Order: sequence, then C-alpha cells, then structure tokens
Amino acid sequence: MDRNEIISCRKEANNHLVNELLPFWVTRIKDEKNGGFITHFDEKGNDTGEDEKSLIAQTRSIFTLSSAHRAGYGEGRLAELAAHGMDYLIDKMWDKEHGGFYWMTDRSGKVKNDQKIIYGHSFAIYSLSEYTLATGDERGRHYAEAVFDLLQKYCVDTMYGGYWEMFHRDWQLCGPGSQGGDRKTLDVHMHLMEAFTTLYELTGLEVHRRKLLEIIELLLTRIIHPEYKTGIPQFFRNWSVAPQIKFDIIWGWDRFSEDGQKGHATDNTCYGHNAEFAWLLLHALDILKVDPGDYTEILRIIFDHTADNGIDQEYGGVFVEGPHSGGVYDREKEFWQQAEVLIGMLDGCLMFGSEKYWKAYVNVHRFVFDKVINKGVGEWYPLLSRQGVPIWTHMSHSWKINYHTVRAMVQSIQRLDKLTET
Amino acid sequence: MDRNEIISCRKEANNHLVNELLPFWVTRIKDEKNGGFITHFDEKGNDTGEDEKSLIAQTRSIFTLSSAHRAGYGEGRLAELAAHGMDYLIDKMWDKEHGGFYWMTDRSGKVKNDQKIIYGHSFAIYSLSEYTLATGDERGRHYAEAVFDLLQKYCVDTMYGGYWEMFHRDWQLCGPGSQGGDRKTLDVHMHLMEAFTTLYELTGLEVHRRKLLEIIELLLTRIIHPEYKTGIPQFFRNWSVAPQIKFDIIWGWDRFSEDGQKGHATDNTCYGHNAEFAWLLLHALDILKVDPGDYTEILRIIFDHTADNGIDQEYGGVFVEGPHSGGVYDREKEFWQQAEVLIGMLDGCLMFGSEKYWKAYVNVHRFVFDKVINKGVGEWYPLLSRQGVPIWTHMSHSWKINYHTVRAMVQSIQRLDKLTET
Repeated sequence: MDRNEIISCRKEANNHLVNELLPFWVTRIKDEKNGGFITHFDEKGNDTGEDEKSLIAQTRSIFTLSSAHRAGYGEGRLAELAAHGMDYLIDKMWDKEHGGFYWMTDRSGKVKNDQKIIYGHSFAIYSLSEYTLATGDERGRHYAEAVFDLLQKYCVDTMYGGYWEMFHRDWQLCGPGSQGGDRKTLDVHMHLMEAFTTLYELTGLEVHRRKLLEIIELLLTRIIHPEYKTGIPQFFRNWSVAPQIKFDIIWGWDRFSEDGQKGHATDNTCYGHNAEFAWLLLHALDILKVDPGDYTEILRIIFDHTADNGIDQEYGGVFVEGPHSGGVYDREKEFWQQAEVLIGMLDGCLMFGSEKYWKAYVNVHRFVFDKVINKGVGEWYPLLSRQGVPIWTHMSHSWKINYHTVRAMVQSIQRLDKLTET
Repeated sequence: MDRNEIISCRKEANNHLVNELLPFWVTRIKDEKNGGFITHFDEKGNDTGEDEKSLIAQTRSIFTLSSAHRAGYGEGRLAELAAHGMDYLIDKMWDKEHGGFYWMTDRSGKVKNDQKIIYGHSFAIYSLSEYTLATGDERGRHYAEAVFDLLQKYCVDTMYGGYWEMFHRDWQLCGPGSQGGDRKTLDVHMHLMEAFTTLYELTGLEVHRRKLLEIIELLLTRIIHPEYKTGIPQFFRNWSVAPQIKFDIIWGWDRFSEDGQKGHATDNTCYGHNAEFAWLLLHALDILKVDPGDYTEILRIIFDHTADNGIDQEYGGVFVEGPHSGGVYDREKEFWQQAEVLIGMLDGCLMFGSEKYWKAYVNVHRFVFDKVINKGVGEWYPLLSRQGVPIWTHMSHSWKINYHTVRAMVQSIQRLDKLTET
C-alpha cells in the first residue's frame, strides 16, 4: 500500500463528499412546502416531481444527514435538515393506531401504501438511532425503541428463528409467494444487524445487545453459504434455500425475468452484499466490544471472494452477481455495490494488511471517480454497463437516495486515515 | 365403556368438586387482612402461616376460581373471589418500573424475590385471560396482553426459536447452569401453549394465533421425543437434550440428588406431562379451529405410552416417570399427574373410543377417590407411596394450590358428559 496513493484517494474522496455529494443534497432535499424530503432527481439533478415519499428514502436521508453531522461535516446544517425530516416522519408516516411506519405516502403526506415492511423498519431503527447519537434529540431513540419492540412482538418466527418481513397495516403477516409472507431474506436480516448495532450503540441495553448477538449468529449459521461464506438471498421459513423471486413490494434493483424468476435462482450471490455484510459485521463487533479474532477466517474468505470474483480487472468496478463457488453471471455495474465494496476492501486492508484488497479498493475507487460520479452534478449514476456507460441516469428516487454514496465516502475517509496512521 | 360406570364416575367427580374441593377453597383462600390469597394449608386444612405469596399460587387461584365460575359453579361467589385476587396481583405483584410480575412477595405484599420467571408468567397469561373470559373484567385482558408483549420482547431466542425462561427483575437474562439462563424446558413451553390458547380464545388476535401455532410446532418438532412422542424435560439453547438439573428457582416436585442431578438425567419422561400435553394440544386445536385429524397418530402414541407404561395395574394410579422407550423409574404417586392423566385418558376415549383408555381412566379415578383425596378435608395429598400411603401431607403450598385438582374435576365432568352423549 503506497502511502501517497492512500493520501491521494483520501483527498479525492473528501473533495467529492464536501464539495459535490453533500452540497447536492443540502441544496435540494428539503421539501419546504410539505415537510420531509424531496427524493426524486433526474440526471441533471432536477426534481422529477414524482409524487411519493418512501419510508426508505425518508429514513435513509435522516441517516445520511445525521451520520455526516456526527462525523463532523456540515457545521450544523445537516443536523437541522435531519430534524426537519424527523418532523415529517413522525407526523405523517407513523401509524398512530397500530404502530410502525407506513411504507409510502405522497408528497403531501397522504398514505399511499400502508403496509408494514421490515426492510423499511430496519432503516427506521438505524436512522433514528443515528439521529439521536448525532443530535441528542430523544425523539429518535423513542421511535427506534418503539419499532424494535414492534418487531419483537409481531415479526419474530419463534419456531425457526429470524424475522418475518412483510405485514399488513395491522401487523398481520402477508400471504405466501410474491406477497413475501413465507420468505426470509439476507437483505432484511443484514440490515437488522446494521440497525441493532446502532440502536445498541445508542442505548447500551442488554436486550438490544442480545438480539444483535442472536442475529449475527443467525447470519453466520443460516444465511451465508456454509462453504463459501457468501450471502444466500432468499429462504423458506425453515432456512432451506428458496429460489429467488420478485416480491410485490420492492426496494431495490434486482432484475427479474417477466415471470418474476431470477436466472440462477438458487445459486446466486451478490458481491456488494457480501462486502457490506463483512464490514457491518466488523462494525457490530466493534460496538459490542467483541474480539473480531474469532471471525478472522470467515472475513478473509468473504473479502477474498469479493476481490477474486467481484472485481472487473479489465474495465474496473464491481460486477453485480455470480455463483457462490466463484465466477460471474452479471457484469453490469450497480452504484451501491461499488460503494459497499469500497468500505469492505478498506476493512480488509486494515485487518489483513493485504496488497490484494488495496488493489481491489483502488480499482473500484478509480471506477467510481472516473465513471460512476455524474460530474458537475455530484451524485452517482445508478446503473452502468460493464464498460462504464450509464444505463439508468436518474440521480435519485425512492430506492436510490443518498445512504450508500455519502456513507461510502464518510466511512472510506475514516479508514483511509487509519491506513495512513499505520 | 359402560354407561352406568361413566355416570357413576361423573357423579363422584361432581360431588367431590361441588361439596369438597370448591368449599375447601372458598372457605379459606381469602386473605381479608392483606388482600390476595392464603395458599398454605396443612393436612387438616389449617393455615400454616408461611409468610409468602407466590406468583404461581396467586395466578393459579385466579384461574381456578374463574374457570369454575365460567363452567357454571359457585353462583357468583367464585368470580368475586377471583376479582379479590386480581386486586392483589395488580397492586402488589406487578412491577410498575420494568413490567412483569415479581416471583414472590410476603403475605403483606412486600417483594421477597423480584426475578421474572417465565413459568410464572405463563400462568399469568393463562389465568388473567380466563378471568376476563369468565367475568368480562377487562383488567385481565390488559395484563395478559402486556405479559405476552414482554415475553415477545425479552424472552424469545431469535436464533434457535423458543423462549428463554429465567430473568432478573429488569429482564436481563440470567446466567447459565442452575440459574437456568441457558436452558429451555418442556414445562415452560407446554404452559405457554396452554396460556396462548386461552389468550387467543379471549382476543382472537392474529398475532396470538400465530405464536400459538408456532409454539405447537416447536413442541411437536423440538420438545417431544421424535420416536416415542414423550416429553423431554430440558434442552440447551440449540434444542440438544440437556441432562436434567435442578434450578435455583423451582416450582414443582422434581426430586434430585444432593448435587442437583437427576437419575437418568437424559432419558426421562413424565406421564403426567405427556397426558397434559396431549389434552392441552387437543384443546388448543379446538380453540384454533384446526382439524385434529393431522395429529391423530401423535396423540394415539402419547395416550398409549401413558396407558401402557404410566398406569400402575397393581396398586392403581399414575407413576412419576420412566424412560422414553417404556418402563418405569419412579413408582411413587404425585397428585398432579393423577389429575392430568384423568383428563388425558378421557380425551383418548372421546377421540379413539378405546376401551384401554377407559380402563386407564377408571384405574386412576379409583386411586384418586380411594387414596389421594384427604377425606373430610377435601383436597388431595401431594405425594403418596406406590401403595397409596401419603408421604407428604400438606393440602397446599406455593406450588401445589388448586389448579390441577379443580381443573381435573371441571374438565373430567365435561368429558364424561360427552361420553354419555355418544
């Protein structure tokens, strides 16, 4: 690892965060008329006018602003904006009758989809905890704990462990198949680990610690591949692998065939999730004050799988997905996978001092700065061809928003600083 | 099954319930001075003065009084007494700071043991639900639901399923070994099934139904023996069989050697629990409106194991325990096992029309009426020799109380009535 190269990457990242990313959001996110955040922007950064506010986009924006404030950016402006988002989230999205947050409102705050979706609630816990850690405003803790309690009451499968993920407004479990009521996913359980980590960081409560330790064990023994340690996307109730299907409620970018099936539906893993899982696990262990030594082997296997299979040595960047045993199915480039692999590879460098992970980091860093960032606008293109030509060009909508991009820069800068200290 | 014999047993049971058991309790249970119930009586039915009120004894008494009232006994007096018990339970045993009920107070209501023990909380849910079903007083539902919510928040093992059982006052999980914080038991899970059944009967809520279905599946796939369908008493976290140990907090009659070990610690099943599990399962299916047809084979195996191994053909009555594969270790006679086998064998008769179960019922019925009942006093001896000579002679203390005896008569009469109708 060349010290000058580290410093140069750090400079680039800091410049992007301070002069491009954060200004992109600070100048456009506030909905002055209706409260909350505007979250739909086109390639030029103009509001597309789409009449929706999603639970994910509102909570992730609160996380982004709060975490950047806690990391020392924004001179107070980010905390003010986060508080503005909190007002909307509590006033318009909290279900005063049944508890929990609605999945979707229109811009004015009228409920468009009243389902209780655990993916969104994981971000509620994560973001509201971060908000209180950043600002001291106890509203965040109050609602984060309330959501945690609702999850424990309504969502745990007390037979096979883990959490059910899709509910109606009154917390009745949704039906099977595309309604999602009979499936469990890597995605939700990984984000619950992320959420419980920050909740425990905030509260220090034993019950939050216990549930965090339990979900870590669940991820390690049920959800990642027993041999390759790669994430398996979907399961049936008893943790047998389920062929990946498209749910009625979506929150991401997975592309399916017209019948809702996925190619390689039972042998598919995603590099961005794997790297994200690894660094979130390391972060959880740090907050728990648990020695990461016992996890060294697993983490090395995951980082190696990512570096060996997920990185495009020819055009740069991170591929979408491939088989557990190695290789690639989908060679396009999704923005969020670049973001998560940046952080993961830096954790690999810090933990193992490995030149391989540093090369992987630099590869992805260059791809992001040369191809993914929409220069002069400041945010990232969501999807690019293998060669780095934008396929989708909007800067934000309900699922994209700012959490991966801003977090990648905040977290990378902290890790690059540590690398220069070593 | 001889119709005259059925009618004769029914007459004996009804006479015992109406003229002996219920009067025993109605005339002595009310603590006029301190509120709540007096629960310690010697062989003659005199108050022993023991200065304790246990969560189990207070809640079980509320159940007994409420259920007998709901079944049509007592002309209102039982409901009044139950309400008197509710006042004490809520005022003196509910932890206003952390939620949940204390394990033990003295007679005046001062807390003697502030731990949160799930065995006791299962009876809280069961009794408070029955109380509201019997009386319409919504306080029962309020606290039953509150306890259910606390269980879901603090007690579920979200990794392996099932419930942790021993907690400190603030719901921090107790330590391992004799503190019980690393064990799971048949006893607690069976009583949670019983509790969730009556809670669901009261509320009709989907979440109560769902958790009841889950715990039934848990009992059937984790807790009863895969081949013999007999109950396994203790487990480690991951449902591997744990050698039976004595916990610091006890609630029953299990006898251990001085080092807290049990003879045959890993191959031991108890006939009373098995019969109780079977009839409680049938009752749960009835409340759930689930066809018991799918459970026919399991129920027949359990009833056969009880009738073939648990019944003393020479001296009458139900043995204490034996190996899963058949046979007997302990030939003494515990009161509660007689009570539960009475109900279980009658359910066997109703379900299978089997003469074998009727003979087993009559055997135990005769043993109870000839040997176990303390004549002229009205309650049952807690422990007798194989031949039916009382070993322990008190009529009640914190763990014995009235729930098994009164329930056995109320439930048996209902089943004997059904048998005469067929």
